[in-house]
Amino acid sequence: MKLDKNLNILIVGLGLIGGSYAMGLHKKGYKVSAIDVNENSVKYAIDNKIIDYGSTEIDEKMVSSADLIIFALYPHIFLDWIKNNQHLFKSGAVITDVTGVKSCIVYEIQSVLRKDLEFISAHPMAGKEVYGVENADDSIFNDANYIVVPTDANTFNAIEMCKAIGETLGFARISSLPPKAHDEMIGFVSQLTHCIAICLMTCSKSEHLVDYTGDSFRDLTRIARINENMWSELFMLNKDALLSQMETFISEFNGFYEMLKNEDIEKIKEKMIQSTARRALFDK
Amino acid sequence: MKLDKNLNILIVGLGLIGGSYAMGLHKKGYKVSAIDVNENSVKYAIDNKIIDYGSTEIDEKMVSSADLIIFALYPHIFLDWIKNNQHLFKSGAVITDVTGVKSCIVYEIQSVLRKDLEFISAHPMAGKEVYGVENADDSIFNDANYIVVPTDANTFNAIEMCKAIGETLGFARISSLPPKAHDEMIGFVSQLTHCIAICLMTCSKSEHLVDYTGDSFRDLTRIARINENMWSELFMLNKDALLSQMETFISEFNGFYEMLKNEDIEKIKEKMIQSTARRALFDK
Repeated sequence: MKLDKNLNILIVGLGLIGGSYAMGLHKKGYKVSAIDVNENSVKYAIDNKIIDYGSTEIDEKMVSSADLIIFALYPHIFLDWIKNNQHLFKSGAVITDVTGVKSCIVYEIQSVLRKDLEFISAHPMAGKEVYGVENADDSIFNDANYIVVPTDANTFNAIEMCKAIGETLGFARISSLPPKAHDEMIGFVSQLTHCIAICLMTCSKSEHLVDYTGDSFRDLTRIARINENMWSELFMLNKDALLSQMETFISEFNGFYEMLKNEDIEKIKEKMIQSTARRALFDK
Repeated sequence: MKLDKNLNILIVGLGLIGGSYAMGLHKKGYKVSAIDVNENSVKYAIDNKIIDYGSTEIDEKMVSSADLIIFALYPHIFLDWIKNNQHLFKSGAVITDVTGVKSCIVYEIQSVLRKDLEFISAHPMAGKEVYGVENADDSIFNDANYIVVPTDANTFNAIEMCKAIGETLGFARISSLPPKAHDEMIGFVSQLTHCIAICLMTCSKSEHLVDYTGDSFRDLTRIARINENMWSELFMLNKDALLSQMETFISEFNGFYEMLKNEDIEKIKEKMIQSTARRALFDK
């Protein structure tokens, strides 16, 4: 399925991801409006032809003419925004998001939403260590994963439309996962790795190590530069899944510690052989 | 100080690092011989003009004419090699190495070595995920650290000569650390990170995650592809320092787990702010 070229698209939240969505969709010829409370962000996006129209307020005409609304806000703001303004939405509009955690938000939004609207959740697994529409860059999607996260409440057409957004933006891989499986996966591949990177940077005074670090330490700590407001909220919203993944990792790490302490070289080698074989799959 | 152009250099062990040393020194015009038990490695190095002369045996003439001998062998073989063959060394010869751990080996070698020879240890912090002289590549040194690891037994001249090897090979940064400080640093920036990467790959069946992994997981597990024979030996030889670093990390990680469990958002944000500030120093 392709996105209808006549769609009116509204993006709420012009940060890095909202701005990059706007840039990618606008380049492909779609009419893109945007709402953001920050006047500089809206002005920047208009001046740089990232959007057609923009507003710092909830412009009734803009909202009520949108066929597709994409939320790129912090999760807690996002839910309130919908509760307060959904009376303005056009009947039949499709609503999607870019939020990094799902179970805590998808069901609640679907339950409060007017019955003539549909919310279909999506997670673009792309980002940068910098923020704001000034750093918007739709090329960040080219090598990235886009995950549609449907529930039983979603229709075939909305799911296909949501996939079409990912295709239009040029994501490398588009897949589909239910909310729970999505959150477990994210707890492991994204949130656990960020916890590890943070702890590596904070566990030891490391300033004097800059002169000695090779690629290993740099690789494992790149993501220790982190937006504390966004990530602490995402951690809290996915708390149970993340704690469970942390427990799994701690248990494995403690086991490795014991092998080393007991000089159980054969078991250590086994683990290394297993990790080498599994990691090799990622480099195919 | 520059290395004397007339030096006879002997490299013992033609793996990735020994081969890359030979390649770099030979390109700069030095006479380089090499000994390796593997006939294919010696033949490859001669055919590809990485060395001038090579032997699979302990060629007495080759050994006794060397002014500088560089060992690029596994630590346990390296010590025996010196014990068994040092009667052949030229009086006044300087001996160095490329071993990744130091306390366990430097003092022992210095204590068994003939008094008319000098052993000055060095650690080139460079590598690849592939092995053997066939993958030798002296460009791996260009962005890397070279650490001279002297003891009280070393002379100024030998330390300067050892630094000159690093300069000749084109290392980006050359520094000096005593054995204990070197091993603590390596336990943290290199060995601890490898333990973490291994455990991330082995703690959970991850084959199905290949489709969903973003850059974070890939970055943190790149070094999980690991030579189990070399690394298990290096871990054992630096066991105390590594266990201590693992304890520090476990304690920090458990603390972060508790903050999350208790929803102590302010403390979590503090850690993120600290990790961001510390990591920023690495990107200057």
